Amino acid sequence: MSQADGIERTDTEDQSNINGGNATKADEEMRNELELAAVYVSDAQHDRNITFDTSPPGIRLYMLYNHWALLVLVHLLIIINLSLAVFEDPAVYPLPLWVTLAVELVCLTSFAGRLLHFARVTPRSLTTMLAGRPDQAKNICRLLIVIIILTLLDMIIYGSLQAAGVYGVRWSRVLRPLLLVNITEGRQLRRAFRSIRNALPQILYVFLLFMFSVLVFSLMALKLLGKRGLKTEDGNSYFTNYLQIVFDLYVLVTTANSPDVMMPAYNANVFFAVFFIVYILINTYIFMSVFLAVVYNNYKKNLKEEVRQLVRAKRRKMARAFCVLQETCGGAEPVVTQARWSRLVGLVQPNIRSAHRQLLWSVSDTEGRGHIGKLAFMQLPDLLNIQVITLKSRPHPLQTWQPSLYNSTASQFVCRMVKHKAFVYVYDVIILLNAVFIGLDEENSLISNLEWLFLGLYLLEILLKLYTFEPRAFFSRHQFWNWFDTIIVISALIATIINSALKSAGGYSSRQVLDIVFILRILRLIRVVDSIQRFRIIINTLIKIGPTILTFGQLILVVYYIFAMVGMELFKGRVRFFGTGSTDPAHQYCGNRLLNGTDFAKLNYCRNNFNDIISSFILLLELTVVNHGFTAVTHVSARLFFILFHIVVVIVIINIFVAFVLEAFFVEYTIAKSDLQTSLEKKIAELELGVQQEDLDGSLVESMETAENDLGPSESSKGNPSLMFRIASKRYKTVDGLLQRIFEADLNPEDYAEDEEADGPSQSDANLQNPAYDGI
Amino acid sequence: MSQADGIERTDTEDQSNINGGNATKADEEMRNELELAAVYVSDAQHDRNITFDTSPPGIRLYMLYNHWALLVLVHLLIIINLSLAVFEDPAVYPLPLWVTLAVELVCLTSFAGRLLHFARVTPRSLTTMLAGRPDQAKNICRLLIVIIILTLLDMIIYGSLQAAGVYGVRWSRVLRPLLLVNITEGRQLRRAFRSIRNALPQILYVFLLFMFSVLVFSLMALKLLGKRGLKTEDGNSYFTNYLQIVFDLYVLVTTANSPDVMMPAYNANVFFAVFFIVYILINTYIFMSVFLAVVYNNYKKNLKEEVRQLVRAKRRKMARAFCVLQETCGGAEPVVTQARWSRLVGLVQPNIRSAHRQLLWSVSDTEGRGHIGKLAFMQLPDLLNIQVITLKSRPHPLQTWQPSLYNSTASQFVCRMVKHKAFVYVYDVIILLNAVFIGLDEENSLISNLEWLFLGLYLLEILLKLYTFEPRAFFSRHQFWNWFDTIIVISALIATIINSALKSAGGYSSRQVLDIVFILRILRLIRVVDSIQRFRIIINTLIKIGPTILTFGQLILVVYYIFAMVGMELFKGRVRFFGTGSTDPAHQYCGNRLLNGTDFAKLNYCRNNFNDIISSFILLLELTVVNHGFTAVTHVSARLFFILFHIVVVIVIINIFVAFVLEAFFVEYTIAKSDLQTSLEKKIAELELGVQQEDLDGSLVESMETAENDLGPSESSKGNPSLMFRIASKRYKTVDGLLQRIFEADLNPEDYAEDEEADGPSQSDANLQNPAYDGI
Repeated sequence: MSQADGIERTDTEDQSNINGGNATKADEEMRNELELAAVYVSDAQHDRNITFDTSPPGIRLYMLYNHWALLVLVHLLIIINLSLAVFEDPAVYPLPLWVTLAVELVCLTSFAGRLLHFARVTPRSLTTMLAGRPDQAKNICRLLIVIIILTLLDMIIYGSLQAAGVYGVRWSRVLRPLLLVNITEGRQLRRAFRSIRNALPQILYVFLLFMFSVLVFSLMALKLLGKRGLKTEDGNSYFTNYLQIVFDLYVLVTTANSPDVMMPAYNANVFFAVFFIVYILINTYIFMSVFLAVVYNNYKKNLKEEVRQLVRAKRRKMARAFCVLQETCGGAEPVVTQARWSRLVGLVQPNIRSAHRQLLWSVSDTEGRGHIGKLAFMQLPDLLNIQVITLKSRPHPLQTWQPSLYNSTASQFVCRMVKHKAFVYVYDVIILLNAVFIGLDEENSLISNLEWLFLGLYLLEILLKLYTFEPRAFFSRHQFWNWFDTIIVISALIATIINSALKSAGGYSSRQVLDIVFILRILRLIRVVDSIQRFRIIINTLIKIGPTILTFGQLILVVYYIFAMVGMELFKGRVRFFGTGSTDPAHQYCGNRLLNGTDFAKLNYCRNNFNDIISSFILLLELTVVNHGFTAVTHVSARLFFILFHIVVVIVIINIFVAFVLEAFFVEYTIAKSDLQTSLEKKIAELELGVQQEDLDGSLVESMETAENDLGPSESSKGNPSLMFRIASKRYKTVDGLLQRIFEADLNPEDYAEDEEADGPSQSDANLQNPAYDGI
Repeated sequence: MSQADGIERTDTEDQSNINGGNATKADEEMRNELELAAVYVSDAQHDRNITFDTSPPGIRLYMLYNHWALLVLVHLLIIINLSLAVFEDPAVYPLPLWVTLAVELVCLTSFAGRLLHFARVTPRSLTTMLAGRPDQAKNICRLLIVIIILTLLDMIIYGSLQAAGVYGVRWSRVLRPLLLVNITEGRQLRRAFRSIRNALPQILYVFLLFMFSVLVFSLMALKLLGKRGLKTEDGNSYFTNYLQIVFDLYVLVTTANSPDVMMPAYNANVFFAVFFIVYILINTYIFMSVFLAVVYNNYKKNLKEEVRQLVRAKRRKMARAFCVLQETCGGAEPVVTQARWSRLVGLVQPNIRSAHRQLLWSVSDTEGRGHIGKLAFMQLPDLLNIQVITLKSRPHPLQTWQPSLYNSTASQFVCRMVKHKAFVYVYDVIILLNAVFIGLDEENSLISNLEWLFLGLYLLEILLKLYTFEPRAFFSRHQFWNWFDTIIVISALIATIINSALKSAGGYSSRQVLDIVFILRILRLIRVVDSIQRFRIIINTLIKIGPTILTFGQLILVVYYIFAMVGMELFKGRVRFFGTGSTDPAHQYCGNRLLNGTDFAKLNYCRNNFNDIISSFILLLELTVVNHGFTAVTHVSARLFFILFHIVVVIVIINIFVAFVLEAFFVEYTIAKSDLQTSLEKKIAELELGVQQEDLDGSLVESMETAENDLGPSESSKGNPSLMFRIASKRYKTVDGLLQRIFEADLNPEDYAEDEEADGPSQSDANLQNPAYDGI
């Protein structure tokens, strides 16, 4: 292997040569270089963008920083920190103050430690970083330090106030969700927040126009209806107070008080209905659509810019990795040899099969020259991100154990039967029959006995499938429905047995166990949708946008948490819930005389309160669906809280959610495979390693994966048709991958080209600037 | 002028020559040809697509068919026909049966006449057309004939049943809105319906999956909650009936019964809230977004295909017009001379200014050769559809009448003051102050006197502006806000004077007049938004999508009308409204004992009924906003009506509306001027006829248009800077124009090219097939 590694490494090599360069030293250096390149590739693959110290200890520190165990720990601590609200006053399960404070202190210390780790990883020291050029990472660090200091301050103040018996407010709890946004590697979440921030001015203008419209309509309502002496159903005067009208009409936009708010006017004169119709048309339909349009458009634009930066950063990382690994073997162009490339891939993805690695290499090195140039090398993270499913046909264990029995006519008949389409249909009918029986009364002994029959049938189905298909293939990673079936049926079996045992033992039937049995039985019905092709497509799309929905889950969590904290401080204890069977007269007005006779009390909404974090979250969800704005209990100004919540959650966040679902669906409808996927597929077909089409058609054999059993190099597997590849088409490992695919058409090709040229000198400059490591 | 008109006209010309071709004959022929070409161009410009008889009487018949008076008459008759529902049983204003039947008969006869006219216009006779190849126009004709016959049949049956005193159902009224869809030139409406029909299969699959989800959740709710003995607020058993649960959970998707439906379970155990949260997340948020995505995607796809066909038809028409007009003057390429082109444009748009015509010609004939080829000729309808605003600076009448006075320093100061930005701001402040005083109690005499002051100030503003700006420019067609201001202020003045006169005369203040005064005062406030640039942009976009909203208004009207007719037959008289001050005990339960104690009666919803067409429409609008599904009064199966209405209106039509607003906004955000607009603008700049930029900046002078006063040819205007042009940028005369612009990027350029090539032979074939007219 040639020693000519690259231009910028020469000093280091000279140094090592002076120090008496021997083979061990060179090997170690080689390993260090490979490690550095692997970190670059891994960063590019996972779209990380942190400038780190490139010395060997720096690399190790950085790898530790990105270690999954540490990431899990950080997330765990954030969850613990956030869930402290369950135990703090107003608590669901009260704990002494010192316990929650101590736990919070532990969390904060860990976060500070993580921050310190980050400071050590980046080449500059924390202090210079804080003073240096303004970039994202630094802003985040500053923000985190401020949050931690503020929280500590609040803990001390609150602790002392409590010790002195003075009432205090834990205001720093509002800052907690910001930790979730900023300390984790939640790029999606941060990006979502940035996009929202950037879209705000546009939304603001539409919102102001919308509010102007509401105010003008309210004024008109006041003038038209205020003097007519109309009464609401409660007997209050109707539309006489301007601010009350503004609030009522704002709530009408959320459709919460339709048609109640219109009825008195409509009862008085049919022409007043025209006023409300025009209002609803303009404000509920047109303005809400315009909000969606503006949010969608701006969010998409911002996201596109972010993704463009992401792609640039990725290419920069890969260019650096190439510089580290490049050799100039004879020709003028620097190249990377297959040997180094293979070791690199081995480092980046330790559990990759060598056949798979061989396949990727043959896609990169199309001409079989044994080395690849910069352009082909740059594709590596995208290649690694393409999900390739390896399939291995393996004989059934019964066939190897009892070949004569397994190959007998009867056995073959059973296998053919199970593989037949009618088998699926028969079980669909059984499931539907089961659904009918579930709907019937389970007190009837015949029906409860029938449930045993159904359980038996489901068990039989699983056993038959296990008999027909290779068990390890049946339970491979991609076989979602097989896992689903088996877990549901086995759990249902266990729960039903426990239930029967309890019943026969003491005639006592546990409600909880029965609930679980019912849920499991009903979940079993979902299987039916899988056998209908059309439904499967829709569900697959929904599953694909799952990670995005999770990102929005976090977004909602952050917003809800902040609103819950503020709401709990403002409204805790104002409404009380006395339990369903309470005879307390205060139950009639939810423990607050202000609510006496209001709809809130009449409809028994007492449990909709801010008395603890769980109630708050459920109430906020109700407000998201329909914002009634329950404000009778406190001052009228409390309505601002509800209006603000509606603006933030419904107008902004829900619209972004809708925008993302729209975008994801359009992508599913329109995008074909990428060029890289196509070339990979072509290569698979060329090497005759593709999965036969008949295998693909059978939905059960589809996408089987062998156990993690590595084969030799692809030369040996070439003649061996038992190992095969298939691309999990259009599926992306990461949300970022999907996003890059979404905007691929929109990303200027010149953008890439320019970028590369611009990167050419700049990245080598950057690499030269990086302290060349000198073997400790 | 050369007599060589074209290849396919030769026979005709030979014939006319044989008949003794003299100058008059040739002139007449020439006129006929020009008329034919003008009809083709006009068809292309307005995107009409009817094959018509090309003989001179055929053309005249076709021009009559497209005459605006006939079109207005048809629309008027349709409106009369639809509004018959107001006078028919159950009527708002009852009329004798024979009156409504007679009016309907007149309408039907007219529609039949229109249809006959159409049959005469098209080259084939009605009977062969009915038997011939299946195309759209024919299908529509068949449908119309069936509708007319069915309606006549129903009228006869219903009339005889009524005469015999037997109860009958006017079932054919459901068919009436179909006349609106099919007999008018409502291409947009028909296209919307076609797009919906084509999108239905996709929507259906998502809907089935959605219903499956609702059914499974309902089953789970039944099993989990049905046995707990929970009670709703009304004291009914909670979640014990499967169909009731399905309905409740379906209504929860519309958010109408949130959180009521969840409260009993939530009160019993906080964990049951999880069930509802998951339900809302999946069914309300995810599925509703997926519906929007599917509707949007399919609607857009279908619309794109329709627009593509439209463009093709347009090019075919223009190719035919070119064939009629073409001359081969010397060169090999057939061309159209400027003289013929000018006469053609004059026929198509009789009121076009010759300077404008000259401008269009110079854009087409860039090289100044005096004739244009086929490609340049094809642009004509697009050129005509670009809105060019001609501006003419003209001295103020006072200046010509009293020059010394008008040009005095004081007068000039006034003019400068009015033109100053501060003038606008001062009046904005006045308007806001006025808004505050409107909000205060008008019973106070000081405030009611102040209203006179404000009126005076507004009048002063208008007079000052009229003094400063040329009155005819001030009241030109594009000056929306000037018209708005003047009309509102003058009306307010008149109404206030009438009100005061009434008051001082008898101390009596008419409520109606006062209402009008208030509405006018408040409408005046809207002017404020025009002075803020950002708001103006948003409002302009909203105004631009206005025609589309009107199309959807028709769509909604059709659907509402059908549902109202069915609803009136099913539910009329079930709920009765006794007036606000009624003491009738039946008032407590809306005249229906089934409603006793229900929320419907408690909330005094009695006026929400199907007792006449107006109540029905208002109720349907309420159901669109929030679908409560009021069904307690009849059989449980009536819920199907409400669920069906929700599916049709909310899931399909409202989503299409949202999709169109989205699309229109994206277009506003993204599209620049078209190539044609750019070249027209360039030509205007070249000819130094452009409007100076400083004129454009002043928002008041913007887009002034001179009175309809034609100048000579552009040669004379070239040196005259008093007439200038400006493109009303990105504005389209027709919805179709906007649509073609929207999909311009998506329409394959090859599509055009191929089309033209394909058209080359086919259109000449088609033209040869058209009966060559032979001079009467």
